[in-house]
Amino acid sequence: MPITVPVLPAGVDPAWLPREVWRPLGSRRTLVDGSGPLVETVHGEVAAGCARYGGAVVRGTRGARGAPGVPDGSYDLVLRLVHHGGAGRHTDPALLASPGEEGFVHERSGGTTTVTASGQRGLLYGLFHVVRLGEDAFRGDRAPEAHRPATELRMLDHWDNVAVHPVMGQVERGYAGGSLFWRDGSAVADLERVRGYGRLLAACGINAVSVNNVNVHEAEAHLLTDRVGDVARIADALRPYGVRTHLSVNFASPVLLGGPACADPLDAAVREWWAEAVRGVYAAVPDFGGFVVKADSEGQPGPFTYGRSHADGANMLAAALAPHGGTVHWRAFVYDHRQDWRDRSSDRARAAYDHFATLDGEFADNAVLQVKHGPMDFQVREPVSPVLGALPRTRVAVEVQATQEYTGQQRHVCWLGPMWSEVLRFRPGGEHGSAVGALARGGMVAVSNVGDDPFWTGHPLAQANLYTFGRLSWQPDAEPRRILDEWIALTFPSAADRLVDGLRTVLHGSWRTYEKYTAPLGVGFMVQPGHHYGPGVDGYEYSPWGTYHFADRDGIGVDRSAATGTGYAAQYSGPWAELYESPGSCPDELLLFFHHVPYGHVLSSGRTVVQHIYDTHFEGVAEVEEARRVWAGLADLVEPARHARVAERYEEQVRCAREWRDQVNSYFLRKSGVADERGRTIY
Amino acid sequence: MPITVPVLPAGVDPAWLPREVWRPLGSRRTLVDGSGPLVETVHGEVAAGCARYGGAVVRGTRGARGAPGVPDGSYDLVLRLVHHGGAGRHTDPALLASPGEEGFVHERSGGTTTVTASGQRGLLYGLFHVVRLGEDAFRGDRAPEAHRPATELRMLDHWDNVAVHPVMGQVERGYAGGSLFWRDGSAVADLERVRGYGRLLAACGINAVSVNNVNVHEAEAHLLTDRVGDVARIADALRPYGVRTHLSVNFASPVLLGGPACADPLDAAVREWWAEAVRGVYAAVPDFGGFVVKADSEGQPGPFTYGRSHADGANMLAAALAPHGGTVHWRAFVYDHRQDWRDRSSDRARAAYDHFATLDGEFADNAVLQVKHGPMDFQVREPVSPVLGALPRTRVAVEVQATQEYTGQQRHVCWLGPMWSEVLRFRPGGEHGSAVGALARGGMVAVSNVGDDPFWTGHPLAQANLYTFGRLSWQPDAEPRRILDEWIALTFPSAADRLVDGLRTVLHGSWRTYEKYTAPLGVGFMVQPGHHYGPGVDGYEYSPWGTYHFADRDGIGVDRSAATGTGYAAQYSGPWAELYESPGSCPDELLLFFHHVPYGHVLSSGRTVVQHIYDTHFEGVAEVEEARRVWAGLADLVEPARHARVAERYEEQVRCAREWRDQVNSYFLRKSGVADERGRTIY
Repeated sequence: MPITVPVLPAGVDPAWLPREVWRPLGSRRTLVDGSGPLVETVHGEVAAGCARYGGAVVRGTRGARGAPGVPDGSYDLVLRLVHHGGAGRHTDPALLASPGEEGFVHERSGGTTTVTASGQRGLLYGLFHVVRLGEDAFRGDRAPEAHRPATELRMLDHWDNVAVHPVMGQVERGYAGGSLFWRDGSAVADLERVRGYGRLLAACGINAVSVNNVNVHEAEAHLLTDRVGDVARIADALRPYGVRTHLSVNFASPVLLGGPACADPLDAAVREWWAEAVRGVYAAVPDFGGFVVKADSEGQPGPFTYGRSHADGANMLAAALAPHGGTVHWRAFVYDHRQDWRDRSSDRARAAYDHFATLDGEFADNAVLQVKHGPMDFQVREPVSPVLGALPRTRVAVEVQATQEYTGQQRHVCWLGPMWSEVLRFRPGGEHGSAVGALARGGMVAVSNVGDDPFWTGHPLAQANLYTFGRLSWQPDAEPRRILDEWIALTFPSAADRLVDGLRTVLHGSWRTYEKYTAPLGVGFMVQPGHHYGPGVDGYEYSPWGTYHFADRDGIGVDRSAATGTGYAAQYSGPWAELYESPGSCPDELLLFFHHVPYGHVLSSGRTVVQHIYDTHFEGVAEVEEARRVWAGLADLVEPARHARVAERYEEQVRCAREWRDQVNSYFLRKSGVADERGRTIY
Repeated sequence: MPITVPVLPAGVDPAWLPREVWRPLGSRRTLVDGSGPLVETVHGEVAAGCARYGGAVVRGTRGARGAPGVPDGSYDLVLRLVHHGGAGRHTDPALLASPGEEGFVHERSGGTTTVTASGQRGLLYGLFHVVRLGEDAFRGDRAPEAHRPATELRMLDHWDNVAVHPVMGQVERGYAGGSLFWRDGSAVADLERVRGYGRLLAACGINAVSVNNVNVHEAEAHLLTDRVGDVARIADALRPYGVRTHLSVNFASPVLLGGPACADPLDAAVREWWAEAVRGVYAAVPDFGGFVVKADSEGQPGPFTYGRSHADGANMLAAALAPHGGTVHWRAFVYDHRQDWRDRSSDRARAAYDHFATLDGEFADNAVLQVKHGPMDFQVREPVSPVLGALPRTRVAVEVQATQEYTGQQRHVCWLGPMWSEVLRFRPGGEHGSAVGALARGGMVAVSNVGDDPFWTGHPLAQANLYTFGRLSWQPDAEPRRILDEWIALTFPSAADRLVDGLRTVLHGSWRTYEKYTAPLGVGFMVQPGHHYGPGVDGYEYSPWGTYHFADRDGIGVDRSAATGTGYAAQYSGPWAELYESPGSCPDELLLFFHHVPYGHVLSSGRTVVQHIYDTHFEGVAEVEEARRVWAGLADLVEPARHARVAERYEEQVRCAREWRDQVNSYFLRKSGVADERGRTIY
């Protein structure tokens, strides 16, 4: 019996899996061949598609030996699980062997499209590959292509709280309603939507979810022990779509949960406490993925309390997880959040490298160092973190933020694909070195932008960020615009060219547009404190958070050069250290991140810094106004609810962008005294 | 039987009524003569003092006819209620008649001190007058002195919420713990502390309390109708000390509480709804004081919704209250809180005058216009509101803020007596006109600084603000330092000279010290948005709240002149309008409130504006450091708990004052480029 495909609650958007995407496959004859629970999922999906569109599915269970009594040539599509090293249609064993647990081989000849996988997840991903191809999957011939993910861990971290936090709410930095997983202090009673979420994730290549906030408060700490049953229920819902469940844990769990009175990672009783806790978790969740840990960071406890290193801390948890195949994701987001703004020698940007670079080689095999893509905190523009090239003997994961904390909070359109792609293509060792996407052996992680909102992500167009993250985590060197086209084709099936063009227009440049009307030239953090929405040019200027621009009447920026500044630039390998060291060679878009320059400094664009600020802020608003106009023109092509939701958010985006423009421009006019060359209105 | 004096819960500070203040009276022979519930209170107080200190009290009930069988000469103290117009010892009927319901005549001859009152409250206030005098009350002879309050309403407005507000908490802008009145959604079960609070209020002359926040949310709206029983319980607890209970009401109450679907003040059904509601209140609280209303202000509903004037709104409520002797206090705090910072022609400071001046003469006799002392919002320095002299045919009350929202939130010492005194002595019509204290026929109101904190006010020294307010409300032209000395003598009985001197030192100049290290020269609002604690020079600069300083690289301040600015200065009467109009004649301390001037503008002090900013900020911190040192030196003279609480808050005050100094100075150095003449460290 095929499993039943998830049925989303009424009114919940199907996102990139609307019914219509199943038509090409569902109207044909398919063989699903192989055995195992995820093969049942594949069968269930195909069966549902066929039930809807008149096709037929045959279920085989012989794997490489072919389905019983039916020649493959009778099918339009064969989805086949082969045993590793077994003989199939392919005569090249290397090709067959290469895809691994999650890969698949896709080919077409003689009127039959074939997906062959040696692992169940591979078959599932192969199925969704066929779905993505649509009618193209059933045209002409196609030589065998092997598809495999670049990294075996492609994870979403949900910053969801079990108990609603008095300040941060149910989902910390969440802009899409409440939690998908938690309600009224427990896992949600009806997990059908969570199953549907797992299906959406599988369809874009994500295979892991951490189900609670990295800031682990009291209620959430108990998920590790007496509340693990809640975790198991969620894991059960996600498992059929190949998604493993992870848990954020509090480093002080032994103390919080009635174990030893300390959390010293070298203390035998503490280690045994963790080992026992992990055994309990695996008893409840046999395929549990592991832990995510934010330690010694923004007030969270950590090994520093006991004079231990972060390697000591991570390795203790790794040791507890190792017997069960689990992994610890140890976040590198460690810095002094009680910095004195008066002290210009301290530099938060340096912190992760300073804390972790010397620990290279000390981490256990199943410990992953999870590094934010930039040295600060998910600003619209940051350099790539120097940590990402600095620990060759450590499994490093790259963390990006799909939830738009600093990029418009899902009230603004800001498609982050191009930013993430820039990070993943960055080569820390220079042009002959590997790209970040290849160096990130520990995986790709995004902070989730999903909640219980009917559109999943608050802003309907923010679904594109989630989808793009999944696909980039599978193939980090993919062209993001090609991924966006996939998303458009799936989400808006049979879209008219005008709609496709319109969606491209409003999404393609939206990140750069957002950058234009907010903080200029890489300087970052000109936001309202606390909630981080809307402009506050001096909002973090005199704060303890290490986030300064040092604007005065003469100039602006942070000197992070080695020669005269904080030395951060020297944390990069050769070519980058040199490039960033001098204002003359530093790329314009990062100039104020690396240098303090006069307002009259001439950028490589030929404009002065202050004129650049004025120009980009006027341009950014004009671009948002234009995007709003384009969207308004698509009203006849988009379902009314979706169109209205986006249109309404464009009103807010335009309002807010104008506020950004006017506050930033007024701030710099008042400070610099330099008039706008074009005489536009600045207040 | 005398009533029992309130017994405060263990650990609650007795404030200005410690046991010892009763010794002079309690060790003597007293006659309490007259009848009525408040006479019983007086009797109870005297009896309790005598029980403790060995004196004796005789209870007479004959009033002017003398106590039965005992000649007055046998008493050290006679406290006597006489019937209005009746004959007593005094031969001058005018003198006897003059004190009114709340006044009293105090004299001493032949070894007997006599307090004569024609109203029960007068007798109660006379008793506390004797308590304040201590042994002096029983020395020598004293010719008859009539004491009476300057205004008949001396009120504390508690901004207490019945239901804890998700953002503002239990007490809005409260810095002294939870509410004295409300807990867990109801009036507190044990009202003994509320009785004790009434006693403290009576001892400083306060006779009215509004028991809920002027922002009236859902739960609090019901106090008017189905929850009036809670109000009655509080009123019962306060009544024995002559304190009447008032209620803040929501102008949209009819709509909120199931009455008519509108709240139009001219709608007959609405008027009848209110009349009926008021009847219900008086049935539960026969001496109910009346309503406090914040209408059309910061989001609260009001008559503007129906195209009616504020006089229409106030008069509707006045009409409902009039048959029962109640009063409506209608707040004049009406302004546009969604102002566009780009629009320099709008001026929040103008709002109250613009809204209300033309309504003079239109308000009912029992409607009081409650006016904040300054045109903005309780900043450390503001000019006196021009509304206070602008409505001669309207009963106006002056509202000050004892809770230190903008003046250190009871973590900083900031004795506000001198500020309030300046306001009350201000003569809106010029030197030959009446002072504000005399013009405020509608009463004196303070936003309470009291909560369920053991010291009542969070900071133990903030008790001085509450006491000073009470005494100034009784006698607005009193010398505040004399009041402070009273407070010291009562609160620290038998204090050594060193303690008295120390307390004077840390309190006398504390308001000016606070002004020095915070926002300079009357400019105001350089605070962190939302919570209003700590510096944020641009915190409200680009906000919708109408609170701007317009600092640029050349200068700072708001041009409110009539000639070139918003015209606010012209709202004042003759001499003041002229004085404020020109930067040359405007007092230094208000310069930036009225004028935008270059940083190099020379003040009447001889210093430039920017040097004044630097100097005062360094001085202010030095003064706080010195006050901390002085306080530390008093450790041997103050109870440990009180000393420790104050010492701990001085640490925070010093930290915060330094933060103010450094942020403000850095801001202006960065903006002006003008170096400190004395070369001190600015960041």
